[in-house]
Amino acid sequence: MRLGLVGRGPVGRYLATRLDPECWTGRELGLVDHLDAVILAVPDDAIAATAARVLDRFAPKALIHCSGATPISVLAGADQVAVWHPMRPFPVGEHVQSLDCVVGLRGDSIWVDRFVTWSREWGGTPVRLQEDQALQVHLACCYAAGATALMTSLARMHFLQAGMAAQDMKVAIRGLSHPALEAVLAHGAEAITGPARRADYGVMDAHRQLQEPSEAQLSTAILGQLKAFGLIPPS
Amino acid sequence: MRLGLVGRGPVGRYLATRLDPECWTGRELGLVDHLDAVILAVPDDAIAATAARVLDRFAPKALIHCSGATPISVLAGADQVAVWHPMRPFPVGEHVQSLDCVVGLRGDSIWVDRFVTWSREWGGTPVRLQEDQALQVHLACCYAAGATALMTSLARMHFLQAGMAAQDMKVAIRGLSHPALEAVLAHGAEAITGPARRADYGVMDAHRQLQEPSEAQLSTAILGQLKAFGLIPPS
Repeated sequence: MRLGLVGRGPVGRYLATRLDPECWTGRELGLVDHLDAVILAVPDDAIAATAARVLDRFAPKALIHCSGATPISVLAGADQVAVWHPMRPFPVGEHVQSLDCVVGLRGDSIWVDRFVTWSREWGGTPVRLQEDQALQVHLACCYAAGATALMTSLARMHFLQAGMAAQDMKVAIRGLSHPALEAVLAHGAEAITGPARRADYGVMDAHRQLQEPSEAQLSTAILGQLKAFGLIPPS
Repeated sequence: MRLGLVGRGPVGRYLATRLDPECWTGRELGLVDHLDAVILAVPDDAIAATAARVLDRFAPKALIHCSGATPISVLAGADQVAVWHPMRPFPVGEHVQSLDCVVGLRGDSIWVDRFVTWSREWGGTPVRLQEDQALQVHLACCYAAGATALMTSLARMHFLQAGMAAQDMKVAIRGLSHPALEAVLAHGAEAITGPARRADYGVMDAHRQLQEPSEAQLSTAILGQLKAFGLIPPS
């Protein structure tokens, strides 16, 4: 199979070492004609324009992108299209050994089937998605990654500001977050704990004295979400 | 040493099996006189009243509570006071084997020293805190536990609503949240990822179509916190 790969970032490098493409290029698009597929491992906002340029200049048989948030329709014009979306961070400068994540796959079955096989070989858990599921799956990913990371950042900041040593801070956060996360995976939102969950307004008011306005707004929104879940009474 | 223990909940049961107290009681306060210490493993909002009743009726030499959010001053009146705060959930009906968490300790050194030794024996990481650090440490705990659990709940809900199988949902969340959390522990808020972090308003607007009003409010607050951290430009 003759593959082209666009993108020199962490995802591009990951795919290059595993798929051994005939051409591997950055934005200069050093590709060739008659490729079976070109995989676009470029930033989300560059996918549509890159797809159009690749199709126009090299007309590969298939186009594939790697973004959970981008519709497959931006690849329109290729005979075969697919999306391979590994649901994990690819940190700059770190070597990803085993994929260890769910991989969302959509598009034409010939390519989805190939990426199912490859993703399994690479240590991932492939999941076939319909196009109309993709955006909600991506929203879920954002809660599990970025939003969770923000809560970790606030915990880290307050532990350190309170004078806790960095090593103790790490032990504290792991010891709190991992069981909290696993309890929700097992039991759903019912497993949430803490003063907001108990509608303990005394403790929450005391916390407010230590919070910046942005954190106070976040706490109000957290309380609102707990109410929307029916976990605490509306006030 | 002659110990009394008040509280039949998960923390009370945990301490009962490890400390083998002379008296272990619920709210009926079946204690005796001349105890070296009484440990109060009762809900936060019951600590002050229980402390007063125990002191009045049994006058133990020391009083100890287990709450991160409650000032040590509610124990005033005992000769010696201390707080032992294990920073982890104690799920109802589950057996806690090793503590595997940071334990916050404050109060009189004779009891703090004892609980440092015991906490280490039980698999915990004891950390001595000043009273004026306690509330901020507790706020940090709430971000690492309850707020993180809320983000996990939202991720879980959207993965399931999108039609993902429960087992794949669990693999997806673990694969996203654990690396996100570890990246923040190593690098701080700079390591946060996702469309909000990139100020990708196109993706955020698309997500809004799938969010309830409470989630939209939460997303706005998350964006505000990222701005307050200086991670994205103020708009």
